[in-house]
Amino acid sequence: MPEAGGGPAVVTGGAGAVGSSLVRALLARGAEVRVIDDLSSGRRDHLPSTDGRLSLTVADVREPTGYADRFTGATEVWHLAANSDVRRGSENPRVDFDQGLDGTFRVLDAARRRDVPRFLYTSSSTVYGMPTVVPTPETYGPLLPESFYGGTKLGSEGLVSAFAHAYGFRAWVFRFANIIGPRMTHGIFYDFFEKLRRDPTRLEVLGDGRQSKSYLRTEECVEGLLVARDRASETVNVFNLGSYDQTSVREIAEKVVAVHGGRARIEYTGGSRGWVGDVPQQLLSVEKIGRLGWKPRLSSSAAVDRTVDEVARERGVVR
Amino acid sequence: MPEAGGGPAVVTGGAGAVGSSLVRALLARGAEVRVIDDLSSGRRDHLPSTDGRLSLTVADVREPTGYADRFTGATEVWHLAANSDVRRGSENPRVDFDQGLDGTFRVLDAARRRDVPRFLYTSSSTVYGMPTVVPTPETYGPLLPESFYGGTKLGSEGLVSAFAHAYGFRAWVFRFANIIGPRMTHGIFYDFFEKLRRDPTRLEVLGDGRQSKSYLRTEECVEGLLVARDRASETVNVFNLGSYDQTSVREIAEKVVAVHGGRARIEYTGGSRGWVGDVPQQLLSVEKIGRLGWKPRLSSSAAVDRTVDEVARERGVVR
Repeated sequence: MPEAGGGPAVVTGGAGAVGSSLVRALLARGAEVRVIDDLSSGRRDHLPSTDGRLSLTVADVREPTGYADRFTGATEVWHLAANSDVRRGSENPRVDFDQGLDGTFRVLDAARRRDVPRFLYTSSSTVYGMPTVVPTPETYGPLLPESFYGGTKLGSEGLVSAFAHAYGFRAWVFRFANIIGPRMTHGIFYDFFEKLRRDPTRLEVLGDGRQSKSYLRTEECVEGLLVARDRASETVNVFNLGSYDQTSVREIAEKVVAVHGGRARIEYTGGSRGWVGDVPQQLLSVEKIGRLGWKPRLSSSAAVDRTVDEVARERGVVR
Repeated sequence: MPEAGGGPAVVTGGAGAVGSSLVRALLARGAEVRVIDDLSSGRRDHLPSTDGRLSLTVADVREPTGYADRFTGATEVWHLAANSDVRRGSENPRVDFDQGLDGTFRVLDAARRRDVPRFLYTSSSTVYGMPTVVPTPETYGPLLPESFYGGTKLGSEGLVSAFAHAYGFRAWVFRFANIIGPRMTHGIFYDFFEKLRRDPTRLEVLGDGRQSKSYLRTEECVEGLLVARDRASETVNVFNLGSYDQTSVREIAEKVVAVHGGRARIEYTGGSRGWVGDVPQQLLSVEKIGRLGWKPRLSSSAAVDRTVDEVARERGVVR
C-alpha cells in the first residue's frame, strides 16, 4: 500500500454545499486542496477565493483527460461529485447512471493510476431503501435502494470496494443522512424558499408532510468525515453519518413559512412519498462512528432551525 | 404492477452454461423462450435446435436496438448475460463495468419500456467479499466485494432494486455459489481440463489449493431459480443458491488429474488467493430459499465428482 501523508487532497464536487465546507476544513488543517467541479450544481463563489493553496479545475468527472493530472502526488481523493438531486434521477435514470456510476468508475481509475493511497466516497442513506431495522446500522442487509440515486450509490460502493482491494489503497464509504447547511443549491430547503420567492401566498409540499428524516449540519458532517479518515484503518471503512432523531417535512414547511412571516398557505399533494423513490422514514445508527469519538451535537430539529435561519439570511428573507 | 402470466420468457446469456440449462427447463414447462446472446462466451450449439418455441437473437446487451423488440409481450426477463470470467475483470476493470453494469442498465431499461412484469437477475456470492459470517445469509452487510466482477454484480443489484421500485415490476436477485455442470466455457473445471490437454504432464494451480468454495450443479440451481420465481412475492426477492458444504481447489485438482490417468504433477503457485479479488473461502446460507421448499441434494464434493466425469466425457478424455 502506498504511504499516506499529509499531502495534497483532491475534492471532486468541491464547489458544492458539502464539498465547499470540506474544502474549508481541509485548508484549515493545512492541506493543499485541488477541487474538480463542472460547476453544473456547484458554484465558483462557494470556494474561498484568497487561499493560494486552493485550486479549481473545471471538469466533468466522466472526462478524466480534463483532470487526471491533478491526482499526481495527491495523498487522498474525496469523491463527492454526482447528480445530487435524488428526484431528478426518477425522471431520467440515465442521469444517475452516467454521473454516478460511470463518474465514480473514472475517478477511481484515475486515482489508482496515480497511486493515490486514500479514497473517500460519499454515499447515502438511500442505499438502505426501506430498512426494517431503525435506526439502521452499517451491517444492515440486503440493501434494496428504491431510487436510481440510491441504486447508483450502492453500485459506486461496490466499485470503491473492488478498486481498493485490487489496487491496495484504503477506502472510506460514508452513508449520509440529509446534510444541510450553507450554500445549498437543491434539496428541500432550497425548494421551499424558491417556491415562496415565486409565490409568497402558498407553499406546495410533495407528499403528506409526514415523511420524517434525520438532518445533520454540514459542519458536523465534515468533522465526522475527518474523524473517520484519521481513525479508521480497515481496507474499506463504512460509516453512517446523521443525527440521533428525525424531523418531519411538515415541521420544516411550517418553519420555512414562519420565517417568511407566516402568511403562506401550506398545500400537501398527498401520499406517503414525495416522489418516486422517496423513502418516508429514515434514521441511521451512528454508533459505529460514535466509537471513534464523533457524535452529532445538534438534534435534527435544531439543525433544521439553524438552517432555516441561515438560508433566510443568505437569501435576504431576513436580515 | 402489470399482470404476470405464463407468456414468453426472455433469457439474456441464454446460450451460456447456466443459461442453456435454464432455457431447457423453461421449454420443458411449456414456455416460449427468446434467447439474447452475443455468443462471445455462449455457443449456438448449446441450445436445443429442434424446438419451434425457442428463438435466438444474436446481440450485445449493451446495444438494445438489436434486441429490444424481443421484450414485447414477454412476461419475464432472465438477465444472465455478463462477463462471467471473474479473473478477466482483474486485468481490465472496464470489461466488468461495461458488460456488467451498463449491460444490466440497458436490459432493465428495455424491460421497463415494454412493461415486462418480472425481472430475474443472477448475481453472485462475490458481492459478500470476505464475510465474517459463514455460512453467509442474504442479510449480511456491509457488502464489500473484492473483485470487479463482484463490484459490478453489487451495482447491478442496486439498479435492479431501483428499477423495480420505480416502475412497479417484481424482481429477483440470485446470489450464486459456484455453479457447475454441462457446457461450461470458463471456470476452474474448464481451465484444469484445458491445461491438461495442452500439457498432460503437469497441472498448474493458482494459489495454494486451499481455497474452499461451495459447488452446486446447474440442474439443481435451475430448480432453485424456478422455485423462487414461483413462490416468492416481495418487490425484490434476494436468494442465495449453493450447497451445504465446500470443496477445496486441491480436491478438484486431484480429481481432474485422476480422471486423466493420475500421471500429471500438480504445481501450486502459492498464496491464499488464486488471483486478485479471489476469495479463499465461500459458503452461503441457503436457509431462506429452503423455507420455500428448495434444498441442495448433492454435497459440494458429489457435485464436483459428477462434473469431473461429465466434462471428461464431453471432452472425450474418457468414454
